[in-house]
Formats: sequence, C-alpha cells, structure tokens
Amino acid sequence: MKIITGNICAPKGFLASGTFAGIKRNATKKDVALIYSEEPAVAAAMFTTNQVKAAPLLLTQQHLQQTHKLQAVIVNSGNANACTGEQGMRDAIAMANTTAAALKIKPEAVAVSSTGVIGVPLPIEKITSNIGQAVDQLSATENLDAAIAIMTTDTFPKPIAVECEIAGKTVRIGGITKGSGMIHPMMATMLAFITTDVAISQEALQHALKLATDASFHMITVDGESSTNDMVLILANGMAGNAEISSIESPEWQTFFQALQFVCIDLAKQIAKDGEGATKLIEVHLSGASTLADARIAARNICRSSLVKAAVFGEDANWGRIVSAIGASGIVVHPEKISVSLEDLNLFKQGQPVAFDEALARTLLQEKTVRFFVDLGMGEEKTTAWGCDLTYDYVKINASYRT
Amino acid sequence: MKIITGNICAPKGFLASGTFAGIKRNATKKDVALIYSEEPAVAAAMFTTNQVKAAPLLLTQQHLQQTHKLQAVIVNSGNANACTGEQGMRDAIAMANTTAAALKIKPEAVAVSSTGVIGVPLPIEKITSNIGQAVDQLSATENLDAAIAIMTTDTFPKPIAVECEIAGKTVRIGGITKGSGMIHPMMATMLAFITTDVAISQEALQHALKLATDASFHMITVDGESSTNDMVLILANGMAGNAEISSIESPEWQTFFQALQFVCIDLAKQIAKDGEGATKLIEVHLSGASTLADARIAARNICRSSLVKAAVFGEDANWGRIVSAIGASGIVVHPEKISVSLEDLNLFKQGQPVAFDEALARTLLQEKTVRFFVDLGMGEEKTTAWGCDLTYDYVKINASYRT
Repeated sequence: MKIITGNICAPKGFLASGTFAGIKRNATKKDVALIYSEEPAVAAAMFTTNQVKAAPLLLTQQHLQQTHKLQAVIVNSGNANACTGEQGMRDAIAMANTTAAALKIKPEAVAVSSTGVIGVPLPIEKITSNIGQAVDQLSATENLDAAIAIMTTDTFPKPIAVECEIAGKTVRIGGITKGSGMIHPMMATMLAFITTDVAISQEALQHALKLATDASFHMITVDGESSTNDMVLILANGMAGNAEISSIESPEWQTFFQALQFVCIDLAKQIAKDGEGATKLIEVHLSGASTLADARIAARNICRSSLVKAAVFGEDANWGRIVSAIGASGIVVHPEKISVSLEDLNLFKQGQPVAFDEALARTLLQEKTVRFFVDLGMGEEKTTAWGCDLTYDYVKINASYRT
Repeated sequence: MKIITGNICAPKGFLASGTFAGIKRNATKKDVALIYSEEPAVAAAMFTTNQVKAAPLLLTQQHLQQTHKLQAVIVNSGNANACTGEQGMRDAIAMANTTAAALKIKPEAVAVSSTGVIGVPLPIEKITSNIGQAVDQLSATENLDAAIAIMTTDTFPKPIAVECEIAGKTVRIGGITKGSGMIHPMMATMLAFITTDVAISQEALQHALKLATDASFHMITVDGESSTNDMVLILANGMAGNAEISSIESPEWQTFFQALQFVCIDLAKQIAKDGEGATKLIEVHLSGASTLADARIAARNICRSSLVKAAVFGEDANWGRIVSAIGASGIVVHPEKISVSLEDLNLFKQGQPVAFDEALARTLLQEKTVRFFVDLGMGEEKTTAWGCDLTYDYVKINASYRT
C-alpha cells in the first residue's frame, strides 16, 4: 500500500467540486461540495447515535434503505440543518432533488449532508440555485475544492488517498473529512467522505467501514460533544476491475480493510490535530487492558479529560490527572498495576510515583505531538486514541456568536 | 427551618479550627482543618466512585467500617495524597494517629481527608507537627477558619447552617465544602463536611445523606472530572436532645431530611458558582422526563457540555447545543417533543426553532445566574442541575504548573 495524491478523485470514475453559495457569514468561503461517481457505487455509512439527528442525515439514511447504491453526495457547510423542524426535511429533500435533476440521476441515489450552526433554517434558495454551478465544475483533476468546501471552524483541509493491489488489480481509496469542534463521535463521526474504485459487496463494505471507524473516528475526541450531524460515507464504484470482494474472510477483503483503516485513521488524526483551538495532537497508547472495549474507553477518557488537555497545553507532566481519568472511566482497574510514561520517560510505575526529570518532561511536552504510554497491567489488549489540548482559543471560538 | 450563622459549629458540641502547616506553595494560606465533636457522633459518608481512591479516603472508609461513630475529622489542602503508593497510606495513618493522640481519642474515631495536587508525597512532618496547634485553636465561636483551610483553587469559603424543630427540640445542621475543579461527583463529591446535633440512627442518617447527595452534589458539574478524593461526611452527635430518629418513615426523619437536603443543595450550588474560572452559575430546570434518572442524566449532561458552557460565557443563546447535549446523553428522547427556554423566553418549542428577541436573550445571559428551562415532553419527572461557564480562566488555572 502506498499514499498517493488526488484524495476523493484518486479512485477511478470519481469527480468532485467545491463551490460558493454564500451560506457562511464570511461570504468568501466555499460552502457547497459535490461528489459524483460515473457509475452507481455501492455505499456504506455510519451515522451519529445522537438521538437528535439532522434532517439531511435522516434523509440519507432513508435513501440508503431504499438502495445500497449511490451516485452523488451533496454537502453544505455553514448550517447544520439540525433542529429545524419540518422545514429542515423539506430543505434536505430539495437539495437531493435539485442535485439529482442536474445530474440526471434518481433522488435516492443522492446522499445529503450539512454541517454548521444548529437550529437556523437553511438558506435553501442559495444552495439550490448554486447546484448547476457545482455540477458544471465537477472535475477529476487533483484539487482540494471539495475538502475546503466542507470546512467550518477547521483551519486546514483534510485529504488522504492510498492505493493497494487486490488480486492483481490496483485499487484506490480516497477520503476527505472535516471536524474541529463537537467532536466525540459515537458510532460515527463528523463528516467524512471516502471513495474507492474497489469492487465489493455492500455487506463486505459496511463491515470494513464499521471496523475501520471503531479504530479511527471512534478513537478521537476534541471536546466530548457528539454532534447531531456525524456521518461517514463510503462509495465503492467497482471501476478498479477486481473480482468483487464478497467474503470478509478473504485475503482481498483483509487487504482492502487494512488500506481503508489506514485512510480512516489518517483522517481521524487530522481532525484531532485540528481540534478547535488546538496547538498539540495528543496520542494515548494504551496497553495491558482486559478487553479491547476497556482499552478504548480508558484511552478515549484520557483524551477527553479537560484537565489532561489543559495540562498538555500548559506543558505540565501532570500524570495524576491521567490516572484519575482512568479511574473515573468506569472500567475495572487496579491502581497499583497502572503505569504511565511520556514517550520513554516513566512518570508513574505500577501504582508508585516516579521521580522524573522535569526539564526533560517539559521538552517532550513542547513537541507538536505528545505521546503518553499507559499500561493498565490487567491483560493483553491495546489501542490508541487521539485528542488535542484545551486552549484559550477553544473558549474564544465557542464563546463567540453562534458558531 | 431557618438559616443561621456558625456553619459547622452551629450544632451543639462541635468545635473547629483552621491552621497553617505550610503545605501550599503560597505559604500564607491556611491548609489544615480540624473538626471535633465533644461527644462521639454517628457518622455517615459518601465517597467517590473513582476506582483510583486516595489513601485518606481508603483509611476513612476502614474507620467507618470499624465504627459508625467518629469524633474528629482532620483535613489538609494543597496535597491530595492520591496515587502516592504505600507511603500515602502510612502518611494518612500518621495523620489519624497524631490527631487521635492529641485529642485523647481512638485513631478509628478520626476521619482523614486530603485535597490538592495528585501524585506528590505529603509533607507529613509539617502536618503532624502542626496538629497540636490545630487542637489548641479548636473553637465553637463562629468563624470561617476551617472553611478557609480546606480551600484549593476556590475563591471563597463555602459555609451554611440551618436550624429546625424536631419533636419539640431545636436541631441544627452546619456544613462546609470546597471544590472548584475536578468537579463531576459520582455517588459523592468533593469535600463536604456536615455537622448536626440531631439524635439519629446510623441507617437513618446514611439514607438521608444519600438522598440529599443525589439531589445536590450529584447534580453539579464543573468540568466532567470525577476526583480521586471526593467525600461527603456528616457527623450527628445527638446533643440536640431529641428522641433518636430511627425510622425513615417518621415525620421527624422527613423534617431532618428536608433540612439536610437544603444544606447539601446550598453547598453544592456554592461549588458550581465557584467553578474554576467561572463567571456565571448555570441552572438547568429540567421537566417532562420519563424517569427521575433520565431527568438527572439529561440535566447534568447539559451542564457538562463544554459548548453550552462556552456559549453562556459568550452570552450567546445557542440553544442548539442544549438540544444536541440532550440527544447525546443516552436517554430516550423524541426531538419533536423537546422545548427549551431561557427564563421566560422561548427558544425552541416542541421540536421547532422559535424566532426570539436576541437583545432580550443577551440581557438575560448577562445575569450572574443563567436559568434554562428544558421540557422533554416524555413524562412527569423533573430535576435541577447546576454548572458554570467555561472561560479563559479555566484554561489558565489548569494549564499552570501542577495545580
């Protein structure tokens, strides 16, 4: 497997555009992304478990129940179309219908997604009148337009693409994502759109996406807030020409899954790194858990802790907050078996504090990526979680008017 | 029932002191509190459910298992004596033993409590050599010395006392508490010490304390962090002279419980108001829940939300974040039944956004106490939760070296 350029247009047959409809207050920013596959693509998705779900997400769920094949994804940023009542659903339907008409496909082949402020009606005319332009500008040439058009408080676009060999054919997977605040995905995440030209059955694709999501988007947190609009969507159009992967036991599925998981982890880390106000990426490598579920709960709880996050911002090796976050996570632990280190520097070993070099700790904490290694001493399971520091700018961004 | 002065020394037979042992970096601050009852007192307590428990908390649990009567509480601030290994337990025992010797009582009649930085060995000599002075300065005269000596990042001491009539006798309840960060009590809370001269059985006292804690300390959150040292302890020395309350069905128990609950809620609100960096107290009045448990989860989840907290700091009526926090709380809700208002101002009514007066909303948000009224439309249960806003100062306090 190797990393390639081209993000969502790297796989064969995918085109994308990012255009400007004027939804955001800063009216110079692109706010409509369109992704299109020349062939109908097998689709799989993960959605938020927040019980308050945005209208576009509910509509996309309906479309996926009607057909497992999608051909287009229309996305707007600047407005989440969540908590907008019946008007919200009418607006989501208008987005799907207008896109379908312009592309001459069925409405149920269109996924709809929105991100931005909650509770404000969509400026739907601005979006529908822009869709013709979005279609005109569809292109397979490498660019970041779609990745840019889905950004809200993000500070950089978040693309990735890889290719691998499957049964003698070259298969590509591309992805873009966004997300900066309200990030604590539950069974799904903020927006991520992944394209691939692999030929694969819907069941095998959904299974791969679920496992990859559990190890990636589900292992990041910015602020412990699960959004109303979280969605990971993958389209597989089969144009790589490999024999369709239908068994999750096959080596071909395994190769595809590993590449997909790489893509998902890369996208998830980009989100954590770009957490609202963040100056540092926090990586928690957790080992010695009784179960994988325990490992994931403990690792993510450490990344979620406001006190751990503030200590990393302050470049203070305040390991006691890590141990407290583990103890409060709800999993069974024995404090006397817990060890914590910062890179190679032991801070706490089997329940006993270690006298450590404070100057060295501070140097390690000045890096852009801060890695903690935590061992629970309970078993063999391990995992990694990602988060970011808590800074003045997180407060500033979220205290400002209706972000 | 009426509010009286004197806090923990208001009930008959209780003395207290707050002295200076030199534990804190700011060496002018009092850091040792001692509470003493002239008669052995029936004791009940709630402890943190964090699985990483501080040594003094484990020792106090042992003492309460050996005897349900306590006569003294020794507390230090500036150091939590948590995650300090075997030395931590030896130091907690030394605090109990030295206090017991100075007061000529048994070590198991002494509760020990510590609060402050995690993972640093106690300067135990400073504490033990100070205990003679702590005993000498015991006084029943009204003062805030003990309330001040238990403070860490608190900005004001937190006392309360009430009196009520029980079967013809005047009964008093006094309390002090501390807590400012690492506040998201789980089955107990940060330090709170409550005294009363009521005559009551241990079972009736424990039951009253549990119910009162559920409605008070368990309904506040500052930062979603459950501490290693949370403890609520009540001592009842019986000196009011009432016939011992032994039945939780009796009107006398009900009168005592109502007064105790008032004390606990008052103390809990003082903690939320003094949350690290806070400028505003947030009150969430939640109604229309199917169960009391659901009401409590939803109300506390709103108060815990970093995004809701930041919006209140920014004086922005961003109700979408409240609805999202409800949806993510894990309880069953129907978005179309949810209503949210800020004081009397409707923001969201039965699933539909309401056009509201933004200027009026901003005026309401400029108050020191911000009240949201949330109705889930699912049933008849209701509750209140308290929190505080998320400010630059929360980050500043927790990013600074080893608080």
